[in-house]
Amino acid sequence: MRVLLPEARRILANAGAIVDESQEHVRIGPEIVAQGLAQLHASTELIALAPERNVRVGGSHVAIVPVAGPPNVNDQLRGRRPGTLQDFCDFVRLSQMCDVVHLLGPSVEAQDVPVELRHLDLTLAQLTLSDKVPFVWARGSAQVRDCFAMIRIAHGLDEADFRAQPRCWTNINTNSPRQLDAVMAQGIIDFAAAGQLTIITPFTLAGAMAPITLAGALTLAHAEALLGIVLAQLVRPGAPLVYGGFTSNVDMKSGSPAFGTPEFVKASFGTGQLARFLGLPWRGSNATGSAVADEQATYESAMSLWGTFMGGVNVLLHGAGWLEGGLVASFEKFILDIEMLQIMAEVLQPVPATAADIGLEAIAEVAPGGHFFSTAHTLERYRDAFYAPLISDWSNFGQWMESGGRTASQRATGAWQRMLHEFTPPVRDPGVLEAIGAFAEKRRAEGGAPPSA
Amino acid sequence: MRVLLPEARRILANAGAIVDESQEHVRIGPEIVAQGLAQLHASTELIALAPERNVRVGGSHVAIVPVAGPPNVNDQLRGRRPGTLQDFCDFVRLSQMCDVVHLLGPSVEAQDVPVELRHLDLTLAQLTLSDKVPFVWARGSAQVRDCFAMIRIAHGLDEADFRAQPRCWTNINTNSPRQLDAVMAQGIIDFAAAGQLTIITPFTLAGAMAPITLAGALTLAHAEALLGIVLAQLVRPGAPLVYGGFTSNVDMKSGSPAFGTPEFVKASFGTGQLARFLGLPWRGSNATGSAVADEQATYESAMSLWGTFMGGVNVLLHGAGWLEGGLVASFEKFILDIEMLQIMAEVLQPVPATAADIGLEAIAEVAPGGHFFSTAHTLERYRDAFYAPLISDWSNFGQWMESGGRTASQRATGAWQRMLHEFTPPVRDPGVLEAIGAFAEKRRAEGGAPPSA
Repeated sequence: MRVLLPEARRILANAGAIVDESQEHVRIGPEIVAQGLAQLHASTELIALAPERNVRVGGSHVAIVPVAGPPNVNDQLRGRRPGTLQDFCDFVRLSQMCDVVHLLGPSVEAQDVPVELRHLDLTLAQLTLSDKVPFVWARGSAQVRDCFAMIRIAHGLDEADFRAQPRCWTNINTNSPRQLDAVMAQGIIDFAAAGQLTIITPFTLAGAMAPITLAGALTLAHAEALLGIVLAQLVRPGAPLVYGGFTSNVDMKSGSPAFGTPEFVKASFGTGQLARFLGLPWRGSNATGSAVADEQATYESAMSLWGTFMGGVNVLLHGAGWLEGGLVASFEKFILDIEMLQIMAEVLQPVPATAADIGLEAIAEVAPGGHFFSTAHTLERYRDAFYAPLISDWSNFGQWMESGGRTASQRATGAWQRMLHEFTPPVRDPGVLEAIGAFAEKRRAEGGAPPSA
Repeated sequence: MRVLLPEARRILANAGAIVDESQEHVRIGPEIVAQGLAQLHASTELIALAPERNVRVGGSHVAIVPVAGPPNVNDQLRGRRPGTLQDFCDFVRLSQMCDVVHLLGPSVEAQDVPVELRHLDLTLAQLTLSDKVPFVWARGSAQVRDCFAMIRIAHGLDEADFRAQPRCWTNINTNSPRQLDAVMAQGIIDFAAAGQLTIITPFTLAGAMAPITLAGALTLAHAEALLGIVLAQLVRPGAPLVYGGFTSNVDMKSGSPAFGTPEFVKASFGTGQLARFLGLPWRGSNATGSAVADEQATYESAMSLWGTFMGGVNVLLHGAGWLEGGLVASFEKFILDIEMLQIMAEVLQPVPATAADIGLEAIAEVAPGGHFFSTAHTLERYRDAFYAPLISDWSNFGQWMESGGRTASQRATGAWQRMLHEFTPPVRDPGVLEAIGAFAEKRRAEGGAPPSA
């Protein structure tokens, strides 16, 4: 692989890698990989500001992250537009309110904030509007240091205590094929050194940045992930990592990326197997290539969700709100995804089957052709027997027309507006909030930190 | 159970069941059940008019049936309206054209045809517009006899040869709870005697016609299915059967049936286990409670599909076009479902992983940060490397807006129109077609046959 950061090449060379400095090429042999894998943790506990928000990453747990990374935002009231800090804050609010979202994410770029100050505002928003585990962009050591400092203040920790357990997370992408750029390599080093959670995700679209075959695309992705994993483990053995996978295909007619395809589902199954082969948690995605929060967005996301859940996913990125191949964070799609995620969460609950659950007496009590509405067995249980949907409407056609004849995505607009209206931030120590704000203000006054390696 | 047909009670009494004629109640003990299960077939081959359309029901095979049974039809051009023979024929045409549909179904009621003649028209349409295995309504022995006669003529068989192997199928519903009505009981007897495939499906909505718990609803459904299975096996040991399940929940606020819910998915898993416990193929459903072919219809169907596929379904009813809890057959929903079914079918294809598939040479050939579009490995494979969607649109937002900004369900309207425009019936022996038509004409002249036991 080509590794663009000199410090990363040095670390790998010191471990025995063959490095060609003129080409920036690094070759790591099996013994270096074995060394890198020796102290991996199969699971990690992320510590949140409220203990009930702590998140176990790995094993049979699934941690869900909302949409992450789009430059634009879309909703049915205001249309498609560049993301703002206000939009980012709204996604933090929605993420805080939905129990099925476990970690915060960089849901949309706050393009109205200068890049050298943006990390301060994003971290401040996450630490004040939510008590869930925040995301930190790996956009250079100076920005990362600022964000870590704010999180330390929020938790009331010194640097050594902060390094002892992960309290935030980031995502690292390789520049497939076979390239790790300087900012991303620096991110691996910074997060490993600080003991914070890093997801290492090659983004391998079969036919474009990867071989056109699934076997080839997964092989390339695995090699790239291994380099990132080894680099992190050389910086700090045992650094908390997640094996990321984002393999899909492109439309060979147009070159457009495609998601939620059969190839995406099968790649998810394969990626899960590769992660378990290494003994690491794995990260998948809820993805769609649709330009709008419509039926295609829904079936592609449903396929993605089932593919990743059946593949044994541990961290689901883009869980709610991803649209247009990641170019847009959509408020309506957020609600549609939350409904699907809540259904999945209920599906994973066990089915009780005691004698009382089976209810032979109730079956005997109801005459042939009768109904169970008024049995004691029903009356004891009807309040919470079934999943209560967020936007699903089961009224008949006449009732549905009478109540406005609105589709699910139209009802979703009402749902996110209602939720934002009802939002209240978590109760927090005013002194701590003041200290975080003062830190951000001081750094703003100093000019912040430009994104760089 | 209450069994409303005297002949059925006689058959069960002869096998040792305790029958209370005044109440029409039948109790069958474990030894009668064991006798009924002794000669079950785990799988059956349905014989079609063209050998490549034969369908294996059972084992690891999935046979997909389109929407079955709605009185109404809906599309975005003509709106919601009572079904007609023309609509039924259009669903047969669409079913014939889609490889992912394996069996024909009673996709919509032809309400413009008198009930005593309807079975003749439906069978004629299936036998002339398609070479896939037809459906026969069990609506009384006289109608069933007519339909069997037409299928025998189509295959050129005498009655004994017809009885040797199934060439059509039906679905039997119990009147849950604990009731089997006369028409349905007669259907079990008629189809078993003729050796034709019968799916026996209790329709147990937890909280309404069944206990509010999944364990209770599945227990009731299993008991009802067992009675139907035993009855069929007493009529003819080894009669081809499918264990049907249709357990979901109702909305306890409104009493509306709900589909594609977490409870539906878990009930599918459980029903699959019960069918395998008996050693029978099992039938599930692609269902939704949405009033319109929107995002809710899509996610509920996606949940249903994955629930049934992961539950090991062998016959998927309502595979394409079911809407509004079964009150409507929707042309747009048909297309949306076909897209999802085709994706599922591709997901189930194995992933080749030879050295040529992995393509290490292609990986070595492309420089770091480069692309694979022009490698020999890609050029050899690009034409059919990936699933080609029916209606998915992966163009970016600008292109999508320029091409009309239509949602997937709007594009589906174009798809079904295009398909119906392109339809050509399968090539068939004109003499045979004439003979089937002549039979139907003769029976019409005789007044047909009213639906009854």
